Amino acid sequence: MTQPTTSRFPVPAIDRLPDDIRTRLVAVQEKSGFIPNVFLTLAHRPDEFRAFFAYHDALMEKDGGLSKAEREMIVVATSSANACEYCVIAHGAILRIRAKNPLIADQIAINYRNADITSRQQAMLDFAMKICREPQSVTEQDFTALAGHGFGDDDIWDIGAIAALFALSNRMAHLTHMRPNDEFYLMGRLAK
Amino acid sequence: MTQPTTSRFPVPAIDRLPDDIRTRLVAVQEKSGFIPNVFLTLAHRPDEFRAFFAYHDALMEKDGGLSKAEREMIVVATSSANACEYCVIAHGAILRIRAKNPLIADQIAINYRNADITSRQQAMLDFAMKICREPQSVTEQDFTALAGHGFGDDDIWDIGAIAALFALSNRMAHLTHMRPNDEFYLMGRLAK
Amino acid sequence: MTQPTTSRFPVPAIDRLPDDIRTRLVAVQEKSGFIPNVFLTLAHRPDEFRAFFAYHDALMEKDGGLSKAEREMIVVATSSANACEYCVIAHGAILRIRAKNPLIADQIAINYRNADITSRQQAMLDFAMKICREPQSVTEQDFTALAGHGFGDDDIWDIGAIAALFALSNRMAHLTHMRPNDEFYLMGRLAK
Amino acid sequence: MTQPTTSRFPVPAIDRLPDDIRTRLVAVQEKSGFIPNVFLTLAHRPDEFRAFFAYHDALMEKDGGLSKAEREMIVVATSSANACEYCVIAHGAILRIRAKNPLIADQIAINYRNADITSRQQAMLDFAMKICREPQSVTEQDFTALAGHGFGDDDIWDIGAIAALFALSNRMAHLTHMRPNDEFYLMGRLAK
Amino acid sequence: MTQPTTSRFPVPAIDRLPDDIRTRLVAVQEKSGFIPNVFLTLAHRPDEFRAFFAYHDALMEKDGGLSKAEREMIVVATSSANACEYCVIAHGAILRIRAKNPLIADQIAINYRNADITSRQQAMLDFAMKICREPQSVTEQDFTALAGHGFGDDDIWDIGAIAALFALSNRMAHLTHMRPNDEFYLMGRLAK
Amino acid sequence: MTQPTTSRFPVPAIDRLPDDIRTRLVAVQEKSGFIPNVFLTLAHRPDEFRAFFAYHDALMEKDGGLSKAEREMIVVATSSANACEYCVIAHGAILRIRAKNPLIADQIAINYRNADITSRQQAMLDFAMKICREPQSVTEQDFTALAGHGFGDDDIWDIGAIAALFALSNRMAHLTHMRPNDEFYLMGRLAK
Repeated sequence: MTQPTTSRFPVPAIDRLPDDIRTRLVAVQEKSGFIPNVFLTLAHRPDEFRAFFAYHDALMEKDGGLSKAEREMIVVATSSANACEYCVIAHGAILRIRAKNPLIADQIAINYRNADITSRQQAMLDFAMKICREPQSVTEQDFTALAGHGFGDDDIWDIGAIAALFALSNRMAHLTHMRPNDEFYLMGRLAK
Repeated sequence: MTQPTTSRFPVPAIDRLPDDIRTRLVAVQEKSGFIPNVFLTLAHRPDEFRAFFAYHDALMEKDGGLSKAEREMIVVATSSANACEYCVIAHGAILRIRAKNPLIADQIAINYRNADITSRQQAMLDFAMKICREPQSVTEQDFTALAGHGFGDDDIWDIGAIAALFALSNRMAHLTHMRPNDEFYLMGRLAK
Repeated sequence: MTQPTTSRFPVPAIDRLPDDIRTRLVAVQEKSGFIPNVFLTLAHRPDEFRAFFAYHDALMEKDGGLSKAEREMIVVATSSANACEYCVIAHGAILRIRAKNPLIADQIAINYRNADITSRQQAMLDFAMKICREPQSVTEQDFTALAGHGFGDDDIWDIGAIAALFALSNRMAHLTHMRPNDEFYLMGRLAK
Repeated sequence: MTQPTTSRFPVPAIDRLPDDIRTRLVAVQEKSGFIPNVFLTLAHRPDEFRAFFAYHDALMEKDGGLSKAEREMIVVATSSANACEYCVIAHGAILRIRAKNPLIADQIAINYRNADITSRQQAMLDFAMKICREPQSVTEQDFTALAGHGFGDDDIWDIGAIAALFALSNRMAHLTHMRPNDEFYLMGRLAK
Repeated sequence: MTQPTTSRFPVPAIDRLPDDIRTRLVAVQEKSGFIPNVFLTLAHRPDEFRAFFAYHDALMEKDGGLSKAEREMIVVATSSANACEYCVIAHGAILRIRAKNPLIADQIAINYRNADITSRQQAMLDFAMKICREPQSVTEQDFTALAGHGFGDDDIWDIGAIAALFALSNRMAHLTHMRPNDEFYLMGRLAK
Repeated sequence: MTQPTTSRFPVPAIDRLPDDIRTRLVAVQEKSGFIPNVFLTLAHRPDEFRAFFAYHDALMEKDGGLSKAEREMIVVATSSANACEYCVIAHGAILRIRAKNPLIADQIAINYRNADITSRQQAMLDFAMKICREPQSVTEQDFTALAGHGFGDDDIWDIGAIAALFALSNRMAHLTHMRPNDEFYLMGRLAK
C-alpha cells in the first residue's frame, strides 16, 4: 500500500514561506477550507511557484470567449489523457462547481467524445487534445474549423495555452507524485 | 448537445421481454431502485443477453482467491483503458460499495499505478492491463510474478477472464452507445 | 523449443465432464474427426464454457444479413490484429470451407485491405477492426457508411458483436496459451 | 472486388527484357513452374531489379551460421509485421520447404513468440523484429544477448541485414501492390 | 511555399509594449544582435510573457547540479521529440555555444542515445524523455537510478521541471507557428 | 562517453579491398576530401556494398521528374523519422548543397510539415513518410493525390523506392552503429 503523502519532495512549513506565498496559501485555505496540495508541493520552489500561479491566473481567471467552466473542461480532458490524478480530481471538482453539473467532470475525464456538451465544446476539446497529444499536427485548418464554431483567434490561443500549461502541470504532478486532497472527490456532486 | 438515450439500438418494452429476462430486470430494479442500462440495452438480443450475464455471473459473483471488490477493480481499470464510460461509471459505483471506499474507483480509473491499493493488487491490475492491451505478450514469467503475490493458477484465470469479458463488454457499450444511468455517479461516495 | 500442449491450464478428462459438455465434445469430434482445443481448454471451467458457446452460437450460427463466411472473415481479421494463433488458424480453416476459397483466409489474416473481397466486405471489416482496436472511436458516421453498403442496424450489431466476442476469445486463447490443432492448417486448402 | 493483377505498374513483356533479366526469369520458371510476381514487377526497372536480386542473393543464398530456413523465418516474421502479403505468402512457401515443416510459416507469421522454434531462433527473431520496428533501439546489449545463443558478429549482421532488406522489399511490394502468385499458398503444405 | 512569418498571431510593435517587456527585448537584441522570435510572439500576451520568462529564468539560468549546457541538452532532446522546430533550432544554437561543441546539438536532436555524451548525461536525458513522453510512468526506481549517477533530488526536480516547461513551450510554438530566426542555424558551428 | 568509431563491425584496410570498391573509395575521397563512413562500413561485405551502391545510384543519381535536391529531401525526412544520425547528417549536407539552401535540411529533419518547401514537395514528403512508417496503408488515392501535383507514375515509384531504400539504409546504419563523419555537419551551411 503506497503511503499517502502530499508530495515526494519536501513540503515547507507554512510559517517559513515567503510572505507572498504564505498569504496566498492562507487565502485559499480560508476560501476552500483546506490547502490544495499543489500549493504545498510547488512552494518547495518559490520562484517556480510564483511563475506557475501567474501563468495559471492569466489563463484560468480571465473573462473572455471561453467561460470558466469551459476552461476547466480543457484541464480535465487533457489531464485525463496524461493520467494525472491530481489535476483530474482537483479540476474535476472545480468543473462540477463552475458548470453546476455533478456529472460533467466524470464524463469528460472518461470519454469527452460522449459527454453531455455542445458541439462547440466538442470542437474546443478536440483542439485541446491535439495540443496535448500531437501539437506538431496543428494546421490552419484547425483554426478554420474552430472559427466555424465561433472561436476567435484569441479564444484559440486560450484553448491551446491552457492545454499547454497543463502539459506542464501534469508533468510536475507526476514528477512530485502530487496527491489530490480527499476533499476534492465529493465537491460539487451533491448540489446541482 | 448529444441527446441522452439508453442505447442507439431499440430498447424493448419490459412487458414484452421473455419471462426469464423480465424477471431479472424486475429483480435488479427492486434491489437497486433502477434498471441499469446494460440490462435494457442487451435485452434487444435475448440470447446474447443470457450468454453475457451467465458469463458475468460466473466470473463476478463467485467466491475464491479474489474478493468481489478486487474483481471490480479489474473492471474499472481495464474499462478506463478502453474509455468506456458505461463500465467505468457503473462498476466504479459497485467498486466503491464493495470496497467501502469512496475514493478508490476514481483513483483506479485515472491512474491505477498511484491508487491506494496493495502491491498484490497492483500486480493483479498490471496483469489485467496486459490482457486488456497486449494479450499476445503474456508469458510464463507473468504467472511466476503473480504466484509471488500469492495468486494461484485459478486466480490468474479469473483475472485474465474478467479482463477478457470486459474487453467484450466495453466494445458492446461503445457499439450501442450505452449511457450510464445518472444514479451511478453518486453511489458509494457518501458512506464509508 | 516450446513443448506443444493443448492449454497451460489443466484439461479435464472427457469422461469426467458434465453431461452437456461431454455431449458437445463428442458431437464435434464425430463431425470434424478431432476435438478442437478450444473445447478442451474451456472445459476447465464448465460455466464459462457454456456461456462462451452460447454466445458463439448466437452470433456465428445464425442466418441473417451476413453470410456465415462473412462472419468468419470478421473473426480472422480481428484475431490476426490480436496475434491470436488459435483463432486465426482454426477460424481460417472454417472460413476457407465456408467461402469455398483456399486463398481467402491467408489474405485476410495478413492484410485484409488487399484481399480478394467486395467493397461491402471491406467496409464490414473496417468497422470490425475499429471495434477491435479503438472501439471508443465509433460514431454515427460509421453507421451511415455501413448503411451505404446495405448493412442494416442489426447487421451492424452482428459485425460489432462478433468483433467484441473475439476480443474476449483472443484474450482467453493468449491467457491459456491455447494451441491450434494441427488438423486445421490444411483444411479447406485442397478442394475449391 | 479488387481485380487481381501482378503489379499496379507496367509489367514488361518477357521477350523485351534485357538478356540477363530474361535469363533469370526463364531459369526460375523452369525451376518453379511459374514466375513469381516479384520478378515481373521489379523488371519494370532493370537497374533496380539487378541491385535487388544481387542484395537478395548475397544474404539469402549464402552458407554460414544461419540455416537457409532460419533466413526465411526472418523474412516471414518481419514481413508479417509490415502486413506484406507478397512476402508472407511467397517466403512462407519457401520456409515450409526449407524447414520441411508445413506448420512453421503460419505460426511465425501470426505470432512468432508462440511458434514451435528453438529459444535460439526466438532470440534471432526478437532481434530481427527490433531492426524491423524500432532499429534505433539497438544497443550492445542486443549483441551480448545474441552471443549468449551462439551468434557471432557476422551472424548478427546477417540477421539485421535480412530484416533491413525486407524493410525495403515489403515497401516495394506495397508501393507496387504486388500480388502473390496463387501457386505459393499450397507449396510445402502436403509433404513433410 | 509557406510564407515565412514570426508568428501566426499578431506581433506587437516594440514601442507599444509595456516597459518591462520592451526593456527585455532591447537587452536581448543588444546582446544577440537580433530579437529571437519567441520574445516577439509571446509579447502578444504580456502576462503570459512575464510568467513564461520568469519560469524559464528560474530553471535555465540558475547554478546547481546541472551545468547550463546540460539544461540545454534537455531542451533540445525533448523539443525534438515534439518536432518543435523553434526550440530545436534556437536552443540547439545555445547548446553549441554553452557546450563549446559544434556537433552536440544535432546529435542530441536526431538520436540522443548515440550522442557523444557521458553515461550520466544519457541517464539525465532518459529521465527527461520519460517526463516528456509518458510522465505517468515515473516511479521511485527512476529516482534511485538517477541517484546512482550522482543526481540529488533537487537536480531531478530540475531535469523534470525543464522537460515540463518545454512541454508547454513546444506546444506554444506549434500553436503560434513560431518561426526560428535564421541567425540561429549557424551560431556555434564555427568556433569550437 | 561513447568512444567514437566508424562502425561497430570491422573496417577493412583500404589497400586490401577488391579493386572496384577501392577505386570507388579513392574517387569519393578525391572529390569530397574524406571518405564517408558508409563506404568504409559496408566494405566489410563487398557483395552487399556493390548491391547497395548500385541501388543507390539507380535512384539518387538519375535525372527525371524529381530534382536531385528533392531526392535528398526524401532521404532526410524519412531518416529523421527513423532517428538515423548517419543519414540525417550526411544527406542533410548533400541536401544543403544540392538545394543551395543552408536552412532546408534542419527544417526537414525536425518537422518537414513546416519547412520552406512547395506544396508539391509537401505532398511528395507526405507520401514518402507513408512508405516509411505505414507502407500497408498506401492506396490508389495516394496516386491520385500525387498526380494532382504533377507526379507521374514513375515519379511516384522513385519517391516510394527512395523511401524504401533508406528504410534499409537507416537499419544498416543502426545495426552497424555507423558514425557520421565530422566534416558533414558544416557542409553547405556557409555559402548560399
